[in-house]
Amino acid sequence: MPNQYVAKSRRLRSTIYSSRIENQGVTSYTIYNHMLLPAGFEGSLEETYNHLKNHVQIWDVAAERQIEIKGKDAYQLVQLMTCRDLSKAKEGKCYYCPIIDENGGMINDPVLLKLDDDMFWISIADSDILLWAKGIALGSRYNVEIVEPDVYPLAIQGPKSEDLLVSIFGEDIKKLKFFNFKVFDFLGTKQIIARSGYSKQDGFEIYFKGFENHFNEIELGEKLWDIIWDHGQKFNISPGCPNLIDRIEAGLMSYGNDFTRENNPLECNLEKYCKQEDDHDFIGKDALRKIQSEGIKQQMRGIIFDGKPCKPTGVPLPVYSKNNKKIGQIASGIYSPRIKKNIGLSMINRDFWDLGNEVFINTFNGKNRKGIITSLPFPD
Amino acid sequence: MPNQYVAKSRRLRSTIYSSRIENQGVTSYTIYNHMLLPAGFEGSLEETYNHLKNHVQIWDVAAERQIEIKGKDAYQLVQLMTCRDLSKAKEGKCYYCPIIDENGGMINDPVLLKLDDDMFWISIADSDILLWAKGIALGSRYNVEIVEPDVYPLAIQGPKSEDLLVSIFGEDIKKLKFFNFKVFDFLGTKQIIARSGYSKQDGFEIYFKGFENHFNEIELGEKLWDIIWDHGQKFNISPGCPNLIDRIEAGLMSYGNDFTRENNPLECNLEKYCKQEDDHDFIGKDALRKIQSEGIKQQMRGIIFDGKPCKPTGVPLPVYSKNNKKIGQIASGIYSPRIKKNIGLSMINRDFWDLGNEVFINTFNGKNRKGIITSLPFPD
Repeated sequence: MPNQYVAKSRRLRSTIYSSRIENQGVTSYTIYNHMLLPAGFEGSLEETYNHLKNHVQIWDVAAERQIEIKGKDAYQLVQLMTCRDLSKAKEGKCYYCPIIDENGGMINDPVLLKLDDDMFWISIADSDILLWAKGIALGSRYNVEIVEPDVYPLAIQGPKSEDLLVSIFGEDIKKLKFFNFKVFDFLGTKQIIARSGYSKQDGFEIYFKGFENHFNEIELGEKLWDIIWDHGQKFNISPGCPNLIDRIEAGLMSYGNDFTRENNPLECNLEKYCKQEDDHDFIGKDALRKIQSEGIKQQMRGIIFDGKPCKPTGVPLPVYSKNNKKIGQIASGIYSPRIKKNIGLSMINRDFWDLGNEVFINTFNGKNRKGIITSLPFPD
Repeated sequence: MPNQYVAKSRRLRSTIYSSRIENQGVTSYTIYNHMLLPAGFEGSLEETYNHLKNHVQIWDVAAERQIEIKGKDAYQLVQLMTCRDLSKAKEGKCYYCPIIDENGGMINDPVLLKLDDDMFWISIADSDILLWAKGIALGSRYNVEIVEPDVYPLAIQGPKSEDLLVSIFGEDIKKLKFFNFKVFDFLGTKQIIARSGYSKQDGFEIYFKGFENHFNEIELGEKLWDIIWDHGQKFNISPGCPNLIDRIEAGLMSYGNDFTRENNPLECNLEKYCKQEDDHDFIGKDALRKIQSEGIKQQMRGIIFDGKPCKPTGVPLPVYSKNNKKIGQIASGIYSPRIKKNIGLSMINRDFWDLGNEVFINTFNGKNRKGIITSLPFPD
């Protein structure tokens, strides 16, 4: 796979941390919500994986854009947008919420933050949920205000992340439970910090927001980065980004990679957010109920497979049965230092998805490799 | 500006031509509608510009995705989505159609193809108009079907493009007028070809569509590329992509670069698609009429400026008045071999936008450079 550079332009938005990560050695970017998201730093993927598992990293995840929905009908709209029942949702908590279209196809899998009864942030994966939400609200004449606020999430991930943030924000950081958030003071501004993040390790996400009449937004963001960086020295901090080995080992799916609009939430192992007894109205309900009654034809599985260490795949790897029938594909594959084999997140046809089944993977270089279907996340 | 690689993944979709352009020396990509769009090939920007002006190029513009809207309410929905009056729109013609939100902010500036009375393709710029259209249709309960079909546009641009396509598709190519399209035969499939393209030169866009039960889609697309490539040899064909020098000289705007959701169509010199006497209903009408009655505060202008040849800017260049007041920015700037000065597409405050005004541009390396406000496209 040849390498090409990113052609930078205003359309691929920089973040308020871009100057910092470019100084600290970012080597590749992906684009996420029309924004630069770092995808690699100096050092091998395995080195940064080991660092993440043992120390602490600072990640520019500003590309996790927020869609703010507020107003009288905010709850009604947000609930209409997800199959997950939000009737018991509480302020200060985060909720993973599949968003599906009228056919039951996944169009995003964001984390919802309930800020108060009439105000939500949807922390989105890579699709323009701003346009989806506004389109529905306009068509339905809802009384809501929908914007993409100037919020630039910064992730602090790894086992030392708690100690690092305590050293800056105080002991209250320790009280934060997983998928809960609280407001903390930073140089006189109020900032939301959640215990969350796109890794298997402990970690936090700071939903950094600039404020007019205080500092320049970029300047304040760079100050946040620098203060964390300085305090992080004694915890062996390094710059980082979502790590492919860590996320695949943890079975963390990526929208657009492991599943797309062509997949429904049941195929993505999201049954628990699609309960038939939850009787609220939502877009795609009829389609989803029909799929539930008819059964699905494919589902996400793990695959552990043989052969020399597999590099990031870039394109999906086709998966075959013993009889050379195509039965699915691995969208995200990598060598796992923990399992000491290659692993992949795959979508596999019903007749072949049983745990322990033998499959064959085409890695585009020679003979197909033998693999075994496993559950997700990969067994410890 | 340091260079980073694109981290390839399934989410940044490849096109059916990717194998061809990677063999033919693509050096950089941008991401457009979640898809790889080539942004540079071997050779300097000026060399490829000269080639484009004198010969013919083949461009993988598959990232210009189509949104297909069909059904009983298709026309009603499409008309609601744009301030441009479509009541006289004809089959076989292309229409540039600003799409604005409820605040009058631009959310896309696509080209609409009217396929028949109940069926349209919206050839979109970089935002998820699929979600916008589906959201509105769901909220309004329109009877329409909205999909992103498997259409992979391929552009043939440059003065020799007509002769090249005549050699493949026959003399009827010559009858195509600008922004008109017709159906042509290709190996037994029907393919739409329009006289259009994102350059100042003559050119065509082939809206290549794969067909089930005929060939494999990728295989057929590669055949199309190869046949054009082979026939193109005698016309000195080269691979290419939208050329920054050519598009800036021509004043061709880029959504996300030269204007965003923060800008209304009047600021983008699109008055002719916002006529007050056009009385159809469309989203953003009230906001747009209010802006029209109050007047705009900034507008797109050309700037010709001094100093050594300017490279692609990546980030906007701030523009100042004589008194060192920030009065706008250049989002796309480059050295023009034709004008023999640097040129830029800029958004400039009302008090300073008059043609001939003197301005000062910060290029982040030393002293501000002197410039002059001009009309767009740049004077010949």
